[in-house]
Amino acid sequence: HLDYDNSENQLFLEEERRMSFTGFRCLEISRWLICGLIGVLTGLIACFIDIVVEKVARYKYEAIKQNIERFTEVGGLSISLILWAVLNFSFVMVGSILVAFFEPVAAGSGIPQIKCYLNGVKIPRVVRLKTLVIKVCGVICSVIGGLAVGKEGPMIHSGAVVAAGVSQGRSTTLKKDLMIFEYFRRDTEKRDFVSAGAAAGVSAAFGAPVGGVLFSLEEGASFWNQMLTWRIFFASMISTFTLNFFLSISHNNTGDLSNPGLINFGRFESENLNYNLYEIPLFIAMGAIVLGALFNFLNYWLTIFRIRYVHRPCLQVMEAMLVAAVTASVSFTMIYFSNDCQPLDSEHAEEYPLQLFCADGEYNSMATTFFNTPEKSVRSLFHNQPGTYNPLTLGLFTITYFFLACWTYGLAVSAGVFIPSLLIGAAWGRLCGIWLASLASIWADPGKYALIGAAAQLGGIVRMTLSLTVILVEATGNVTYGLPIMLVLLTAKIVGDYFQEGLYDIHIKLQSVPFLHWEAPATSHWLTTREVMSSPVTCLNRIEKVGTIVDVLSNTSTNHNGFPVVVQPSKLCGLILRSQLIVLLKHKVFVELAGSRLTRRKLQLKDFRDAYPRFPPIQSIHVSQDERECLMDLTEFMNPTPYTVTQETSLPRVFKLFRALGLRHLVVIDDANRVVGLVTRKDLARYHLGKHGLEELHLAQT
Amino acid sequence: HLDYDNSENQLFLEEERRMSFTGFRCLEISRWLICGLIGVLTGLIACFIDIVVEKVARYKYEAIKQNIERFTEVGGLSISLILWAVLNFSFVMVGSILVAFFEPVAAGSGIPQIKCYLNGVKIPRVVRLKTLVIKVCGVICSVIGGLAVGKEGPMIHSGAVVAAGVSQGRSTTLKKDLMIFEYFRRDTEKRDFVSAGAAAGVSAAFGAPVGGVLFSLEEGASFWNQMLTWRIFFASMISTFTLNFFLSISHNNTGDLSNPGLINFGRFESENLNYNLYEIPLFIAMGAIVLGALFNFLNYWLTIFRIRYVHRPCLQVMEAMLVAAVTASVSFTMIYFSNDCQPLDSEHAEEYPLQLFCADGEYNSMATTFFNTPEKSVRSLFHNQPGTYNPLTLGLFTITYFFLACWTYGLAVSAGVFIPSLLIGAAWGRLCGIWLASLASIWADPGKYALIGAAAQLGGIVRMTLSLTVILVEATGNVTYGLPIMLVLLTAKIVGDYFQEGLYDIHIKLQSVPFLHWEAPATSHWLTTREVMSSPVTCLNRIEKVGTIVDVLSNTSTNHNGFPVVVQPSKLCGLILRSQLIVLLKHKVFVELAGSRLTRRKLQLKDFRDAYPRFPPIQSIHVSQDERECLMDLTEFMNPTPYTVTQETSLPRVFKLFRALGLRHLVVIDDANRVVGLVTRKDLARYHLGKHGLEELHLAQT
Repeated sequence: HLDYDNSENQLFLEEERRMSFTGFRCLEISRWLICGLIGVLTGLIACFIDIVVEKVARYKYEAIKQNIERFTEVGGLSISLILWAVLNFSFVMVGSILVAFFEPVAAGSGIPQIKCYLNGVKIPRVVRLKTLVIKVCGVICSVIGGLAVGKEGPMIHSGAVVAAGVSQGRSTTLKKDLMIFEYFRRDTEKRDFVSAGAAAGVSAAFGAPVGGVLFSLEEGASFWNQMLTWRIFFASMISTFTLNFFLSISHNNTGDLSNPGLINFGRFESENLNYNLYEIPLFIAMGAIVLGALFNFLNYWLTIFRIRYVHRPCLQVMEAMLVAAVTASVSFTMIYFSNDCQPLDSEHAEEYPLQLFCADGEYNSMATTFFNTPEKSVRSLFHNQPGTYNPLTLGLFTITYFFLACWTYGLAVSAGVFIPSLLIGAAWGRLCGIWLASLASIWADPGKYALIGAAAQLGGIVRMTLSLTVILVEATGNVTYGLPIMLVLLTAKIVGDYFQEGLYDIHIKLQSVPFLHWEAPATSHWLTTREVMSSPVTCLNRIEKVGTIVDVLSNTSTNHNGFPVVVQPSKLCGLILRSQLIVLLKHKVFVELAGSRLTRRKLQLKDFRDAYPRFPPIQSIHVSQDERECLMDLTEFMNPTPYTVTQETSLPRVFKLFRALGLRHLVVIDDANRVVGLVTRKDLARYHLGKHGLEELHLAQT
Repeated sequence: HLDYDNSENQLFLEEERRMSFTGFRCLEISRWLICGLIGVLTGLIACFIDIVVEKVARYKYEAIKQNIERFTEVGGLSISLILWAVLNFSFVMVGSILVAFFEPVAAGSGIPQIKCYLNGVKIPRVVRLKTLVIKVCGVICSVIGGLAVGKEGPMIHSGAVVAAGVSQGRSTTLKKDLMIFEYFRRDTEKRDFVSAGAAAGVSAAFGAPVGGVLFSLEEGASFWNQMLTWRIFFASMISTFTLNFFLSISHNNTGDLSNPGLINFGRFESENLNYNLYEIPLFIAMGAIVLGALFNFLNYWLTIFRIRYVHRPCLQVMEAMLVAAVTASVSFTMIYFSNDCQPLDSEHAEEYPLQLFCADGEYNSMATTFFNTPEKSVRSLFHNQPGTYNPLTLGLFTITYFFLACWTYGLAVSAGVFIPSLLIGAAWGRLCGIWLASLASIWADPGKYALIGAAAQLGGIVRMTLSLTVILVEATGNVTYGLPIMLVLLTAKIVGDYFQEGLYDIHIKLQSVPFLHWEAPATSHWLTTREVMSSPVTCLNRIEKVGTIVDVLSNTSTNHNGFPVVVQPSKLCGLILRSQLIVLLKHKVFVELAGSRLTRRKLQLKDFRDAYPRFPPIQSIHVSQDERECLMDLTEFMNPTPYTVTQETSLPRVFKLFRALGLRHLVVIDDANRVVGLVTRKDLARYHLGKHGLEELHLAQT
């Protein structure tokens, strides 16, 4: 777990007091520089992914298109199918092998992992450089491999890794330490930068700098700090700008900065897309369509199945390859049997129009949805002229793509769920628009309903609210749709929450990590700290025998991370962390029994920073029998002013304290300042409001 | 001051525990309803102001225009001047009398007051209905009166008043209690709603719902709560929507929802307004122009002068009238002596083109800036063709309007500083654009530079950062300008902060209220609670003599608001507030000396809520000599679990606790749980980072 509360021990205070005002100003400037750098690097990564995907996908689709055109006349389209399937197959195989064998944590979109990280739950290896490399390669492979995935979700994870790396000024993967930014080597600072990185990722993915900031705040920052938020915004802006600038160069119109983001919903003209008051209930009704909840429900069971039966890497690779083959076959079949021919229009030129069995000058409409990168399909659904798709095409597409996307999410490939959700929603939304137009004889622009449907579907799946509204508004570039999108997302969330949680929360819950929500359950005023806290607590004396400390740390059955420090008779005088004790043991900061002090180097904050964040396990530290008899003086290293509460404090009050200050340990004292218990994150996270009132969850031992 | 921390006493806990899950859900639904209502009412108020101003201003300008046209030919334009001056004069007089004599707190934009309120500093009468009425009438008068003011700032105050009124379900001005929303009658809930109201106000003023949310968060919410933010966003959305909808009806194009907000920067076409990389340094240089800081500097001295010499209402009214007359005369003179004639263009038709001494088919260019509502002038400066203004016109206009606006802010009229700032900035920005085009022979669209100049000027004056960027981006409706606007605002803030604080902060400081900034001063690690706290503290016993309590409360020299409750020997067992004690005394919740209990009604939370927020002063409560000898049992009413710290805690740590939890009192205990001091908001607010390191401010006794 991460500690968002600084351990204000003597060393720390000494350092802070030594620092001049200029020193603090330099720190502030380096924070800004780091955020700028995070933005630039995240933007470059997004740019790299986009260009590679676009170039390679073009080769792929052109090759298949030529092949199909050749064989449409002479018969033998099964050869095209095989070509298509094999191409997808190979890309997905590479991506899946990378993920499954080299870095399983790079699977999926990474958003649940980043949510956990920002919440304060540490997930091993989630912000390493190796993870980033595999994530980037993996997402390129899976998008080109034609899976029902997007490349946007992984950008958030990528941004977070960039931030963690840049801010620490070193990489353990590369074994390189630049010896800069050492001040930032602690959880508090690192988490701030990771927030900025995640925001930069959102910003690059959707061209939504404000949406990125709100995403970070919604998911992470418990304590709203003005300067931090402003830096996060800076990183987001720089990231969008970098991406936009380099993409404009690669598209040969340098300096056109009007298309930020990897996904772009295209220009919604406000003239023909205005909505009327009477349409708002229709939008809300669309929000209440529970396809999002159904998606989560199916994916939940699929994930449980996977956890039980598909946990070996080679099985995971095989499943991914199977999905790739099935996706190609299903797409091909759908296109093959579709007879929705539309005239080729010079204005809305399709990227890869497939003529197939259509008359000359026409193209297969089903192919525009399947035979394309999902980003472009979404845009076609939003902007193509009314009448471009017939209802049957859309219906069939919705159903097949729904199941494909549902099957795909959770595979051992690195990929996002945003774009497939938008695509499913846009398809059924457009269908709704067509139906409304024909049923009620009102003119309903199908593109508008496609947008609302996309919002409903995405909202129903991820259940994000504020940030998602802003992201979608920024991606459409039109503030007029703010209110309907917000109402739809709200409805989708309320209706969806009735059935189960959002997709990310489901996956977080399946990992049973102690994730803290925003507020304590409403009916938890019954509980006081007395019932919640862990008791009895393992305390250490201020001057403690080394042997006792080693035994306490080695005790695997408790495995505590924080220990109250007491003076007799068990009066609280501080709090010390496992990591600090480990560093002390490693440097053998002992006082000999006789009282004669060993001549030893005074330990400095730098020693703790050098060990951060991968403190060695206690088993790797050798303490001889003689040393076990020595004493350790914890006074200098413990936090002498831990936050405390009394036993009578109600759960919501403790929860608020925890959440607002980002605590990891809270010492419970009685009216004589004696330690009686310890509240940890896990003690709070296990209460949860179920169908039958307050329930206790069972959380994994971490 | 406001208490953002719930007093979790027995009564409160009992009520919370009695409430079922459905009860909590109903509360949540009413919160949403209230926010919706706040949005609708704020939108309607904005709409009302806009329509009235527009209609009356049209009459005024038409009348003057006809008059000028009549007298241009025959001579005797001094009559027109007198007509103009008298019209302005009378409107401003009405507005100023309303404000100065009936509700002085309605003066100015109200933003400093709302900032204080959200920060937790209570300013008397700031959220009353009467204030709202006078604010609305006042702003209409001053805008029509032709002062250099905007109607946007006051919307934020209006929204806040609406929120405070609606959420409490009663109005003390109207002496009406609807007996609803009683649960929300406490500081915590009320402040949340006031945040939503302020956001709705911003949203209505600038058509910037996201900007509104960020404004509220930047200024107020210390603890970021997801549901709260989402409700604030809802209120903002509804407010924009309502305003937009009703304005579209009044402009006869019902349902055109593309022009949200009172001020609208018009459509920036991205084609001709793209910026190049080399322009970014130019933008930053514009941000460094210290006209904003100069404005603040002049206004600071003016305000000090006013506090000393112009504090009587009739003097204030006379000053306002003087400014009105001077504004009219200066404008007239400028127009009269200007010889900048421009051909009348059918495309960018001016609202009130003045021909004056120009040839037929031409109009006086100076008149478009002065002879118009400031909102329209801003738009002209942003969008008129290059060449519409000549540099001399712009230069003269900038200088005169700068001094007029500076003189106007702080008058006893209700008016905002946003629009005048934008106007000054747009004028000199456009000037920069023209100069750049002629000097460097690069093509610089003057409209673009006008926008950057406006941002620089406004940023230099108010020093808001994140929210202002978003507000400006939303008002331009174009995300492309996000990065330059942000960089300009950032530069303006950094450069400006070198000289002095933002305009609002200056005015807050002049009132010497204990305003808490986001973080403790960087170099304050030297200070510990021991130095900061107030000591000794007036403590009360858990069972205390009524006489003692009355004496403590009547002691005007200390005038404390919170009292630690102790059991012998001075062990902390709770915290009780002045307001709670007053209610207890009022209801005579006494225990007789003999121990025999009086038959009395058990006091309920409702009694406290009914008294909220205007608890009677202690002087109005009569306690007889016999009653003075009785005892009071505080157990049920005190907060048994106040937050505590020890004396060794560093100032930044205490500050963080205060800010994150919105505390008002923090009890300092020693290692045996004995009360040794009390930290209040004032103890923290007085430390401040000056030119010579850490300084102590002198704060007024409140």
